[in-house]
Amino acid sequence: MSTTALGPGGEFDAIRTMLDRWGARASGIGDDAAVFASTRGDQLVASVDSAIEGRHFRRGWLTAREIGYRAVAAALSDLAAMAATPVGILVALGVPDAWRGELARIADGIGDALDEANTVIRGGNVTSASELSITTTVFGAAFAPLLRAGVRAGDTIYVTGKLGAAAAALRSLEASIDAGVHRARFARPVPRIREARWLAQHGATAAIDVSDGLLGDLRHLAAASGVAIAVDVSRVPCADGVDIETALVSGEEYELVVSASKPLDVDAFRSRFGLSLTAIGSASAASEPGIRVVGARVADAKGYDHFSH
Amino acid sequence: MSTTALGPGGEFDAIRTMLDRWGARASGIGDDAAVFASTRGDQLVASVDSAIEGRHFRRGWLTAREIGYRAVAAALSDLAAMAATPVGILVALGVPDAWRGELARIADGIGDALDEANTVIRGGNVTSASELSITTTVFGAAFAPLLRAGVRAGDTIYVTGKLGAAAAALRSLEASIDAGVHRARFARPVPRIREARWLAQHGATAAIDVSDGLLGDLRHLAAASGVAIAVDVSRVPCADGVDIETALVSGEEYELVVSASKPLDVDAFRSRFGLSLTAIGSASAASEPGIRVVGARVADAKGYDHFSH
Repeated sequence: MSTTALGPGGEFDAIRTMLDRWGARASGIGDDAAVFASTRGDQLVASVDSAIEGRHFRRGWLTAREIGYRAVAAALSDLAAMAATPVGILVALGVPDAWRGELARIADGIGDALDEANTVIRGGNVTSASELSITTTVFGAAFAPLLRAGVRAGDTIYVTGKLGAAAAALRSLEASIDAGVHRARFARPVPRIREARWLAQHGATAAIDVSDGLLGDLRHLAAASGVAIAVDVSRVPCADGVDIETALVSGEEYELVVSASKPLDVDAFRSRFGLSLTAIGSASAASEPGIRVVGARVADAKGYDHFSH
Repeated sequence: MSTTALGPGGEFDAIRTMLDRWGARASGIGDDAAVFASTRGDQLVASVDSAIEGRHFRRGWLTAREIGYRAVAAALSDLAAMAATPVGILVALGVPDAWRGELARIADGIGDALDEANTVIRGGNVTSASELSITTTVFGAAFAPLLRAGVRAGDTIYVTGKLGAAAAALRSLEASIDAGVHRARFARPVPRIREARWLAQHGATAAIDVSDGLLGDLRHLAAASGVAIAVDVSRVPCADGVDIETALVSGEEYELVVSASKPLDVDAFRSRFGLSLTAIGSASAASEPGIRVVGARVADAKGYDHFSH
């Protein structure tokens, strides 16, 4: 951890506070850069993601611990989308005075996310700021990273879990209503790290995590692969009490969308992870890549047009 | 580049604007994570650094292009401190509405820093924010990274370049005075990437970059190596018109401090890089690691005591 501009005295106190919370989950910290040893044959992948107060969360919605957890879990989900095994993270914190007293709780939440993904923090940066920001760089190793460009005509498209609860929770939080059973999906999303590796080992050819919403992320996948993807909305699994319209556009779900040329064993997946794996569509050759929404419920659904180009 | 919460439409425009400016200097962008191929035997090192408006710079002090350059150059300096060769960067931007129109200029500055270090941008993140922030993760490859812990008793301590102009410039900028010849050292610091590799190849055993100020960074080096470092202030090279008191504590200089067991060829270094390399002290065994300030000018200098523990 390095630190700048957090003011005299407090700077190293802030770091010590967090290192105390992390214990053995902080590893090899203290040089100008962290060294990542690579296993022969593995490729190193890396991604960065920011969570900013007032943009990605509000103070009243989440505890400090949940804020720390959620920021890091969301960043780790990008490793799941590559079917990479986490090898460490760096965290850059911007900390307003009003948040200084919550640093230990934020660090606890970061630690929860490290535990969830079985990884460690390798360094970071702390600076003062006028709004709380947590920018997480995640590092992973993968022998054959799953890319967005791997979808082929004829492939089946699958999604893990059920969608929509994150958006439903967000809607309740914004309206100051109790988010009930949906709250945990917003406050404590689970990066599908182990699930992604299983999927890659069992034939998945491309992957993306659901961060912009299912339709948006399918569109990214179609564009990167140069295919058309037809999604059957009658098959999209919705969280309890959530309608299909919400499920299709709910962002920050951190479930995985994958493609496969041969059928994936959805029963084996479910028994291994206690999580559904559902075929929701298929890819075909296209002169103009994009997505097409089909299925029984499309007739009475509104607003699909602007998602479909 | 991925993006969140920058608002509809504008999000991908922002990224396109920057990708246009970067051209071939943006490489392999568009997946959930960037893949870094490693050369066999090399270790991958990584570091993160944030530059935040109002903390690290003010809008009136620097152009948008200088702000982009300086943020990335400062982060790259951590690779120099490890004697690593840059292999790419990720940039997470927090962009207030008032800065949206400057994104192309900021991207130009980031591009200048990429050119300076002969590297590329491999991904990033753009989000709205209430203050401009540029958080840069830098990646480098090194066969044998130079660590802070490598100083041995008997080693000579060297510093590259001349110190003090960054602090002198900052003082002028804060007082709204023309920073004159010193301005460039604040606005356009140069990460000593090539110099660091030369030093590592010619016998340097430990390194740190001068970001907290010479005395502060020598203290980090001493603590990590478990030695005492005596610094001879009469030998510390000062920038033109800067006094030794300023030179000793001037931060964000991004010059290098290295140790070596055998004398380094300062003439060869100067003729290769057009930059001075100066022996300023030595390390000795110590029960309590720390620094000691000695030399002709110490008698009439004030305020050393609180630097010396």
